[in-house]
Amino acid sequence: MNSFGRLFRIILFGESHGPAVGVVIDGCPAGLRLAPADFDGDLSRRRAGRPGTSARREPDVPKILSGLLENRTTGAPLLIRFANEDTDAAAYEAIKDTPRPGQADLVSRRKYGGFSDLRGGGHFSGRLTVGLVAAGVVAKKIIRPAAVAARLVEAGGETDIEGAVAAAVADGDSVGGIVAVEVRDLPAGLGEPFFDAAESVIAHLVLAVPAVRGIEFGAGFRAARMRGSEHNDPILDARGTTATNHAGGISGGITNGNPLLFRLAVKPTPTIPRPQATVDLRTGETREILFPGRHDACLALRLPVVIEAVTSIALADLMLLDGQRRRVMGEL
Amino acid sequence: MNSFGRLFRIILFGESHGPAVGVVIDGCPAGLRLAPADFDGDLSRRRAGRPGTSARREPDVPKILSGLLENRTTGAPLLIRFANEDTDAAAYEAIKDTPRPGQADLVSRRKYGGFSDLRGGGHFSGRLTVGLVAAGVVAKKIIRPAAVAARLVEAGGETDIEGAVAAAVADGDSVGGIVAVEVRDLPAGLGEPFFDAAESVIAHLVLAVPAVRGIEFGAGFRAARMRGSEHNDPILDARGTTATNHAGGISGGITNGNPLLFRLAVKPTPTIPRPQATVDLRTGETREILFPGRHDACLALRLPVVIEAVTSIALADLMLLDGQRRRVMGEL
Amino acid sequence: MNSFGRLFRIILFGESHGPAVGVVIDGCPAGLRLAPADFDGDLSRRRAGRPGTSARREPDVPKILSGLLENRTTGAPLLIRFANEDTDAAAYEAIKDTPRPGQADLVSRRKYGGFSDLRGGGHFSGRLTVGLVAAGVVAKKIIRPAAVAARLVEAGGETDIEGAVAAAVADGDSVGGIVAVEVRDLPAGLGEPFFDAAESVIAHLVLAVPAVRGIEFGAGFRAARMRGSEHNDPILDARGTTATNHAGGISGGITNGNPLLFRLAVKPTPTIPRPQATVDLRTGETREILFPGRHDACLALRLPVVIEAVTSIALADLMLLDGQRRRVMGEL
Amino acid sequence: MNSFGRLFRIILFGESHGPAVGVVIDGCPAGLRLAPADFDGDLSRRRAGRPGTSARREPDVPKILSGLLENRTTGAPLLIRFANEDTDAAAYEAIKDTPRPGQADLVSRRKYGGFSDLRGGGHFSGRLTVGLVAAGVVAKKIIRPAAVAARLVEAGGETDIEGAVAAAVADGDSVGGIVAVEVRDLPAGLGEPFFDAAESVIAHLVLAVPAVRGIEFGAGFRAARMRGSEHNDPILDARGTTATNHAGGISGGITNGNPLLFRLAVKPTPTIPRPQATVDLRTGETREILFPGRHDACLALRLPVVIEAVTSIALADLMLLDGQRRRVMGEL
Repeated sequence: MNSFGRLFRIILFGESHGPAVGVVIDGCPAGLRLAPADFDGDLSRRRAGRPGTSARREPDVPKILSGLLENRTTGAPLLIRFANEDTDAAAYEAIKDTPRPGQADLVSRRKYGGFSDLRGGGHFSGRLTVGLVAAGVVAKKIIRPAAVAARLVEAGGETDIEGAVAAAVADGDSVGGIVAVEVRDLPAGLGEPFFDAAESVIAHLVLAVPAVRGIEFGAGFRAARMRGSEHNDPILDARGTTATNHAGGISGGITNGNPLLFRLAVKPTPTIPRPQATVDLRTGETREILFPGRHDACLALRLPVVIEAVTSIALADLMLLDGQRRRVMGEL
Repeated sequence: MNSFGRLFRIILFGESHGPAVGVVIDGCPAGLRLAPADFDGDLSRRRAGRPGTSARREPDVPKILSGLLENRTTGAPLLIRFANEDTDAAAYEAIKDTPRPGQADLVSRRKYGGFSDLRGGGHFSGRLTVGLVAAGVVAKKIIRPAAVAARLVEAGGETDIEGAVAAAVADGDSVGGIVAVEVRDLPAGLGEPFFDAAESVIAHLVLAVPAVRGIEFGAGFRAARMRGSEHNDPILDARGTTATNHAGGISGGITNGNPLLFRLAVKPTPTIPRPQATVDLRTGETREILFPGRHDACLALRLPVVIEAVTSIALADLMLLDGQRRRVMGEL
Repeated sequence: MNSFGRLFRIILFGESHGPAVGVVIDGCPAGLRLAPADFDGDLSRRRAGRPGTSARREPDVPKILSGLLENRTTGAPLLIRFANEDTDAAAYEAIKDTPRPGQADLVSRRKYGGFSDLRGGGHFSGRLTVGLVAAGVVAKKIIRPAAVAARLVEAGGETDIEGAVAAAVADGDSVGGIVAVEVRDLPAGLGEPFFDAAESVIAHLVLAVPAVRGIEFGAGFRAARMRGSEHNDPILDARGTTATNHAGGISGGITNGNPLLFRLAVKPTPTIPRPQATVDLRTGETREILFPGRHDACLALRLPVVIEAVTSIALADLMLLDGQRRRVMGEL
Repeated sequence: MNSFGRLFRIILFGESHGPAVGVVIDGCPAGLRLAPADFDGDLSRRRAGRPGTSARREPDVPKILSGLLENRTTGAPLLIRFANEDTDAAAYEAIKDTPRPGQADLVSRRKYGGFSDLRGGGHFSGRLTVGLVAAGVVAKKIIRPAAVAARLVEAGGETDIEGAVAAAVADGDSVGGIVAVEVRDLPAGLGEPFFDAAESVIAHLVLAVPAVRGIEFGAGFRAARMRGSEHNDPILDARGTTATNHAGGISGGITNGNPLLFRLAVKPTPTIPRPQATVDLRTGETREILFPGRHDACLALRLPVVIEAVTSIALADLMLLDGQRRRVMGEL
């Protein structure tokens, strides 16, 4: 479904080549200061333009259509809309009968009875993440002083990220990457057992971001190879500070006051400047197709700010669920 | 929160050393055949008794208190209750003022104002997973002919799992493990973009299971190190069969008809038969404590059936959300 | 669905002639004092035994299976179960093929493909309201010092209620009634626009109670016949006290600090000691049937405590949604 | 909250004097034919212009920003936006410190810490109902062939509605009214016990519409004055057709295949062209104020199409919940 959250709720709308994309935020506390300029930093981090990113150019100017008065949230839903300006209808024809490998073309056609908007991936496009980034700007204000920092730590298996991307571009190929996230100054107590463990809520949102294929908290997959005596984090004081942080800041699904740490895997961009094998739905036969389109050579390059956004959205909701609205209101 | 699901909804209740644990299932289609004996297989797979598992002995006899008539579901909520019989109140005293590392003792005390039930982990205990297994038995019937198979493929970094567990027991320690899951004969079309991607819903439930620290779909973290030309799965026919399955059976958050594949990391049991450093809440000083309690040396040993259960629960809900109730009813 | 509420959530289970009925409460704040004796007063108000009520005798002893430790809520789900002891399986045969007018027999059979439990109304029975009353006892503690008072003000169109019921019994018939509700000392600010107006949430729960056919707030249907100059409540002070209370304590869907007032209509008991016309599903022909069963001559007699319960449940959820958990916790 | 529905979900946004109002519809089945002209009829029924309605003139041109391709829904969220063109910022000043009786001015100020948009009622304005009407146009297509018809049957207690309104206008006053609703050709089986009874879901939405003060189903409040022998509807055939329809088409919370009937009470417009007593928040004293603004003399005149919309929205959701998506898709 296109909504997420229990108290801080977001609804994502739009398509890659439709008139607009954006987000509605319902449940945002009233009185939060919010100005159009607040979005500039995060939107520009998400924007294409660097080597290895798509040729599509969108100005990404947020237009707030409701819920704001004199640069303060009113308690009514915030609607933040971005016009799509650099669209390309021709993209549709190429994939109409030959679905792209690694994309939603074939499954969306089937699930929606042939009526889904396939142009540029439609509602499945990474273009939708601009709405997430916008909601993240609001969520980041709510969770203050907690601060989420995501960064790309590896591309194509290498820490020289620019080099790995350049090599892939040179080869007419793409690469995946690893994003590492750290949240500091997060209050303890976030997470609602049994099912809304902090890991569950964060993973739910992070794995909804196109191209994310895995997530691990704290020591993560390494924990599976550790002994208990090594993995346990000794508790140092009554506030719960631990000597190590293999738990990644979460105990029993609840944040424990130590830094929240997780990592995620991003797959390589599926559409590459090389022919790929797919089926021709008109004939039922397979053929090699060179798919057009403007794509990042490394999707992961633009993802850290999106991951910061969804993490902040998850934490904002957990904070309100934990009854911390008074504190949030007090921060305004 | 203790409920999960939109159409097939489960509510988990109980504590490790309270009178009972169990599950309510709301939204189960009427007419499903269900007999007490149907639970035997999965409950016995979860039960302790093998080397490396806890000394606690629970008969785990499911008692169905509502929603069933003449071995058929009626459409009303199913309540399945398990009495706790082998409880040990003394377990509480030991951890009252010295919270165990790697457990929820300290955070639950803080989150619930000192009123949470700490005995044996209370509501945070692995004991709660018996209710998940019971709900999984029902969910497995709903998703038929799809079949979920989870197995422990690695413990302590080794594929000789029994050996790894025996070595940890001999050392007075514990080990983690890796569980691999495969779902066959799953219909295409499951997953509700944007936020209820199949990965999101499955990960939400899987990461709510105590001790799970990470999840990856298809090639997962390996995908981050791959090139697009290598990771893409060539499409072979109009049904969406692919030559490889790096995507793990999911495209754009929607199942694509290929086998669904994922893996998860399980941490080593935190409570081990060795002294561990923690804080004494009465004095604020740290000390070494040997915590009592009956624990698995390798939690992951008993986890595959729990993971099958939560996967089946997630898929049952996604199937109903995709409007497949008629098909489900037809299967009864 | 069998669950209701966003933060204070209840799940109702059971059938009239199954092993048990009851309620799960998820989201109850920790630390609330709760003892079995707390249920006595409200359960006894709901119990049959007075003239005009059913011959069924149930001891209605609440058994709390989880979420409570040393008479304090722990923050985990509360499961409150009532055994059904005075059941009568024979009741089923009589209605198997001749559905009772005014009951759910025919629609539930159809909706659940013939698998619903029809014995005594099954999951549709007024017996289920015992779980509501139990949840109401908990909710009443949460909303304190606000206090809900419901009373039967009219039966069969008369204010001499005992007389009206006695006359109906003498005639082998049944009567409906009007219940009036007043909530005093309710904080202002409850209700979450647009869709969770205080009226909406209360009406949702009240109309889910079997036999309720209408609800009106403040002047209600009389308001439709009034002029604005007459209906408007002049505001007397900055706290919002009004000179009159035609609004019934709600402005724009939000409680305004004046007493909350509403009334509801209860239909006459459908099953009466007289033959009634229905269809015989075996032949498709209509015939007159004298349906057996033990029924109240005036359902409304036992309803005020149920209405108090659902009103308190609705208000508890709205209070938590308004971020008043700190206040609630402070009251414990 | 500003969203409603489980499978067919609507989110309402906007303020009376902000840049826009409208609705997002999430969960709309794909393939539904939808063209801008489809909205004309219902929007024009809602529009002001007749005697007794507001002087505000809005063109109400729906702009669909997502979820539609070539006049077919795609399965992605539909965003329908209406620009506010005839706004009047001055309206704000008049009520800033002297809240209007019968409006949300004072409670919204308090609930949202002084940050709510008070201009023309802000998010509480009847202006918001234009989004409901737009969503209703879509919902009406989903529930076909069922058809909802709402009409004003009484104003100020009289059936000569135009006369009653004219008299109120002449007196510088306003009047309330009664709206009667009938739904024909509705399938049996809609409603999800226990809490999502058909009455509950409909009442929830209807009572969220500003100015509605009560609702009754079938015989409604008259039922409270009837005997069971009179109120019961004899069943005539196996399809559940009844000789009378005092139940208003609902048994046990589930539609029974007979016409669905309900009535609702609409209060008189609170803001009238006469001085009214209120408090001056600057001084704490009461005074008489003549509030400016453009208002209907009888809100109920423009309400039938809004009630048709919310009823259709409720029924569309119940239809999908009952697993009737295949049927809905078949109707496209």
